[in-house]
Amino acid sequence: MRKGLIIVHTGNGKGKTTAALGLAFRALGNGFKVCMIQFIKGTWKYGELKAAEKFENFEIIPMGKGFVNLGSEKPDPKDVEAAKDAFEKAKSVIFSNNYDMVILDEINYAILYKLLDVDDVVEILKNKPEKLHVILTGRNAHEKIIEIADLVTEMREIKHPFHKGIKAQRGIEF
Amino acid sequence: MRKGLIIVHTGNGKGKTTAALGLAFRALGNGFKVCMIQFIKGTWKYGELKAAEKFENFEIIPMGKGFVNLGSEKPDPKDVEAAKDAFEKAKSVIFSNNYDMVILDEINYAILYKLLDVDDVVEILKNKPEKLHVILTGRNAHEKIIEIADLVTEMREIKHPFHKGIKAQRGIEF
Repeated sequence: MRKGLIIVHTGNGKGKTTAALGLAFRALGNGFKVCMIQFIKGTWKYGELKAAEKFENFEIIPMGKGFVNLGSEKPDPKDVEAAKDAFEKAKSVIFSNNYDMVILDEINYAILYKLLDVDDVVEILKNKPEKLHVILTGRNAHEKIIEIADLVTEMREIKHPFHKGIKAQRGIEF
Repeated sequence: MRKGLIIVHTGNGKGKTTAALGLAFRALGNGFKVCMIQFIKGTWKYGELKAAEKFENFEIIPMGKGFVNLGSEKPDPKDVEAAKDAFEKAKSVIFSNNYDMVILDEINYAILYKLLDVDDVVEILKNKPEKLHVILTGRNAHEKIIEIADLVTEMREIKHPFHKGIKAQRGIEF
């Protein structure tokens, strides 16, 4: 039986959600059923939503709210509620046995800002169906998420158009 | 007018080609025309080729040969020839004005193993059509490629199923 992997895309660079999308694309081509749950609203663009429509085996569930205020001492109860709703939805999707791959997009962000309890997330990962692939994205993945994951990639920004002119840093393997 | 970016995905981790695929997926959804030229044969899997067929605005051109022998002192002339053919193809695609995005998959690898001269690659990047996005993938991107790029992301392996048990390294931001 196929062993479903727990995959984490984290780091400060581009490509976390994009690489998840690439994995989805590959899985869809294999005839897998894929579900993507969006924990932070508005991070998916028109293009990918439009492309996703081509595949009847790809479901995108937009949940959550926009990016929460980073400066605030305590998370807004409305953000917490939206994240909990997304989490409940994720749980029912994961345990539905209707999918081969579930993407929890930006869930790391929701954990980081205490909209979700990391232990609750670890709990469902521990008990997920054996064959199911689960992909978690978002910067600053929690250590407990890294711990339970099979495959963790850090997307690290070396150069960005907004600060062009900054040289790639020494000591980074390239 | 849109400014086409030069984007590099490098590093030892997973997700370099996958994130390029995700960018293609997004672009395709926007109605862009995308061409992917494969500098190393066999890195694309059945799933993505199958998914790509859904889009008539996505062309995949498999060129190059399998992964070359890393241990050899000098590259095999046949590998050099295959890489040169791929490069000529890439040039004609880039200057055809028929595409909005061109992916040069694993080209960094071909440069690293001296199948291609980095200066020739830089030359076409310098002169590419203004609006065209070009994505270069592969580990160990050459410093001159980093230099000319607008956006560089390093995909860094933190944890891999093949060496499970290895803890995420300290000092890495997560």
